[in-house]
Amino acid sequence: MNEPYARLKGRFARIATLGEASAMLGWDASAMMPPGGGAARGEQLAVLAGVAHGLLVAPEMAEDLAAATAEGEWDAANLALMRRAHRRATALPESLVEATARANSACEKVWREARAASDFAAVRPFLETVVALQREAAAALSAATGLTPYDALMDGFQPGIGAADVEPIFTAYEAFLADALPRAEEIQASRPAPVRPQGPFATETQRALGRRLSERVGLDYDHARLDESLHPFCGGTPTDVRITTRYVPESFEQAMLGILHETGHALYERGLPAGWARQPVGEASGMATHESQSLIIEMQASRSDAFLSWLGPELHAAFGGDPAPYAPENLARLWRRVERGFIRTEADELTYPAHVILRFRLEQALIGGDLAVADLPGAWAEGMERLLGITPPDDRRGCLQDIHWHDGAFGYFPSYTLGAMAAAQLMAAARAAVPGLDRALARGDFAPLLGWLRARVHGQGSRLGFQDLMRAATGRPLEAADFMEHLRGRYLA
Amino acid sequence: MNEPYARLKGRFARIATLGEASAMLGWDASAMMPPGGGAARGEQLAVLAGVAHGLLVAPEMAEDLAAATAEGEWDAANLALMRRAHRRATALPESLVEATARANSACEKVWREARAASDFAAVRPFLETVVALQREAAAALSAATGLTPYDALMDGFQPGIGAADVEPIFTAYEAFLADALPRAEEIQASRPAPVRPQGPFATETQRALGRRLSERVGLDYDHARLDESLHPFCGGTPTDVRITTRYVPESFEQAMLGILHETGHALYERGLPAGWARQPVGEASGMATHESQSLIIEMQASRSDAFLSWLGPELHAAFGGDPAPYAPENLARLWRRVERGFIRTEADELTYPAHVILRFRLEQALIGGDLAVADLPGAWAEGMERLLGITPPDDRRGCLQDIHWHDGAFGYFPSYTLGAMAAAQLMAAARAAVPGLDRALARGDFAPLLGWLRARVHGQGSRLGFQDLMRAATGRPLEAADFMEHLRGRYLA
Repeated sequence: MNEPYARLKGRFARIATLGEASAMLGWDASAMMPPGGGAARGEQLAVLAGVAHGLLVAPEMAEDLAAATAEGEWDAANLALMRRAHRRATALPESLVEATARANSACEKVWREARAASDFAAVRPFLETVVALQREAAAALSAATGLTPYDALMDGFQPGIGAADVEPIFTAYEAFLADALPRAEEIQASRPAPVRPQGPFATETQRALGRRLSERVGLDYDHARLDESLHPFCGGTPTDVRITTRYVPESFEQAMLGILHETGHALYERGLPAGWARQPVGEASGMATHESQSLIIEMQASRSDAFLSWLGPELHAAFGGDPAPYAPENLARLWRRVERGFIRTEADELTYPAHVILRFRLEQALIGGDLAVADLPGAWAEGMERLLGITPPDDRRGCLQDIHWHDGAFGYFPSYTLGAMAAAQLMAAARAAVPGLDRALARGDFAPLLGWLRARVHGQGSRLGFQDLMRAATGRPLEAADFMEHLRGRYLA
Repeated sequence: MNEPYARLKGRFARIATLGEASAMLGWDASAMMPPGGGAARGEQLAVLAGVAHGLLVAPEMAEDLAAATAEGEWDAANLALMRRAHRRATALPESLVEATARANSACEKVWREARAASDFAAVRPFLETVVALQREAAAALSAATGLTPYDALMDGFQPGIGAADVEPIFTAYEAFLADALPRAEEIQASRPAPVRPQGPFATETQRALGRRLSERVGLDYDHARLDESLHPFCGGTPTDVRITTRYVPESFEQAMLGILHETGHALYERGLPAGWARQPVGEASGMATHESQSLIIEMQASRSDAFLSWLGPELHAAFGGDPAPYAPENLARLWRRVERGFIRTEADELTYPAHVILRFRLEQALIGGDLAVADLPGAWAEGMERLLGITPPDDRRGCLQDIHWHDGAFGYFPSYTLGAMAAAQLMAAARAAVPGLDRALARGDFAPLLGWLRARVHGQGSRLGFQDLMRAATGRPLEAADFMEHLRGRYLA
């Protein structure tokens, strides 16, 4: 290992360790912190981010990056990722970084009120500033990376994939959906309506069950915690991962499926290559890959016929009462229900991609300058009408529903659907490679699936780009085919 | 404000903010973290400490400290404290800091086993290394500060007080105790033995009561949390203070009095001058002052006749059962019981100082080179015999009982008793200054006491040294007199 590269490894480990501290403080802010701690926490996170950024853009870093050489596949990938991180960090002038942080924060604050009041006019000037700054950032990142401006933003969330990878997949899905959605609705209408289990469901029972299920999937609580927060998430670090959920007494569905979702994220973090901890190559490979790991647990495995046949009796044993709603076929109808709705986060897996495709098209137009912020509500309504045949009655249920753009996150949305499609493709490959995978799920046993994911995805860290990871694991780059096949099996059969 | 001083304020705020991040991660490590997170947490804290140290010893810092001027009492005190922090940080060569951290950590690890096995021989070589390095550090700090070596260590825990301040006070107390202890025991034997309330006491009830009591004392849970940890403590930051306790079903005494103790610490942090937040002058003035604030709540106020007359019925209302043990006079006998024991942390307020005096004498001899580590068990036994007339049957109940020395903390112990004495002196001054203070406590109302403490202690930050703080608040430097008077009233009347 040559000296510049050895020094770089030390510095990147230091930066990653500061990132771990920030991750823990971020978890605390959502799951533990009393309201009065907010202002100080903001300062703490800002100082940590500033120190880490300072280490990344320091002159010694540039010198060592220029001089370093690395042998072997992992070290070479690691060095390339170091160069990438440095290139992105130095591409943006500090004044732009600061203006962006201020504008995002101001817009996000106004958006919270504007959404509640369904008042797009209130947030519009703030969002215009955010978009203008994002265009500037995209241009600067484009110049530094050689990617198109929009791809340069996407690359910040999922390295190695751009609009050209996504466009044909989304177009294929759009065509599929136009035919599949009415058919799925028709089939659904011809079957008995599902019955909801009757609550109330005690929080303590839900918590104990959620923990037991996540352990069953493979989460080891010597290295994890399960807590509560308003918006569920997975945070923390690979050896100390923190998942959260939210319990409501009327239904256990949200908390339990949410825990399974976050457990998928957590297992990815837990399974990252420990020998490359705190190095860029040892990190998760991006948001689309991360989402594939939560969805393969929540959507592919946990809602499969096989697992539901095990889960139904378990749920009934935990909550008691009438056994009928816990019958696996009822749970399947309940948790695989198709509905055209306005809200992305409430969408089923068949219509969810439509919400993402809409946002993907609109944010490309916003960044490209082809759509003015003022025209967003109209473009949104048109897109919803075209994709799902419904028109939002107000902007609260339209372009005001998501935090992302109002907090400056452009290029993130595709990750959700790329993750869903990758989950289907990975599940198909796992089923083909691992005999008895579904028989194991029918015993509540995730070990065969988890073993395959650890080897093919988690343990790979960021060694491969997104498409190479898919190729190595499934033999093909990402396609929509397996996802559509999965949906056909679940909704059109 | 001249420019170098303005820059210094910015840099010290940054250092303090990193300290806040560390404080939060330290709290998490004790109250929340799963066991598997320990190794990563150690790294996170080490990197944060390293970054903060780097900022403190940077060349720009020395230049600005030399050039800075500050007008006004607070700014002048602030600048002096900045210079003090820089002087102490630069006094120790990095190699010594690293060797000390390694030796302390190794010794502490061995000590945990050695204490359990009462095996002093096992820890002896490790403790010898720790002591040798502490002598070296004391010499370096002495050269930089002009203090004696032992005082230079003490100064790290409670600035502005040294062995010469402590020695006459401790000598006076020793003489007092020789007479007072047997008399207190005699009086106690002549009175009815206290009756213990019968448990079990549900954790939920204890937790709710503990929170209510701490709110009653003045803690605002918009800026605080109450959690559990093996060793109770007060951590966090002034706007987000975190206290912990430990619940056992057999007795509520430990948790409840512990919460009152930590609430005292927490109120000090909450009451620090907000306008000087993140500046040295805005911090707590030292460990002795901090302990005075926990003990004035726990020992002086909460165990007073006045407060017990309010507390007894409250406790009975919470726990139910036989009301007799909750009679205020029974609680007084229960919580003001004198006993010659081996363990410092279990000692009553009359004998506690003897434990501290023993350690104060021994650690001075260890640092001064007048006592070899090998001779510690014998010197300990002799000291206990002389001070309390008892001889520990083994080293587990002797020189192995405390973590402090085995983790490299020399000069800390006096803070406990200085704090107890300061609490008594401050309470006497508060009683004289605030009419109706005890009548308020008899209504469960801490507001008059807290108001006085906020003005005279909390709000002063580190503007004054320990003795000047005492002078300004009570008219005199610290003396043993009020503490002895307090004990006479409680144990000899």
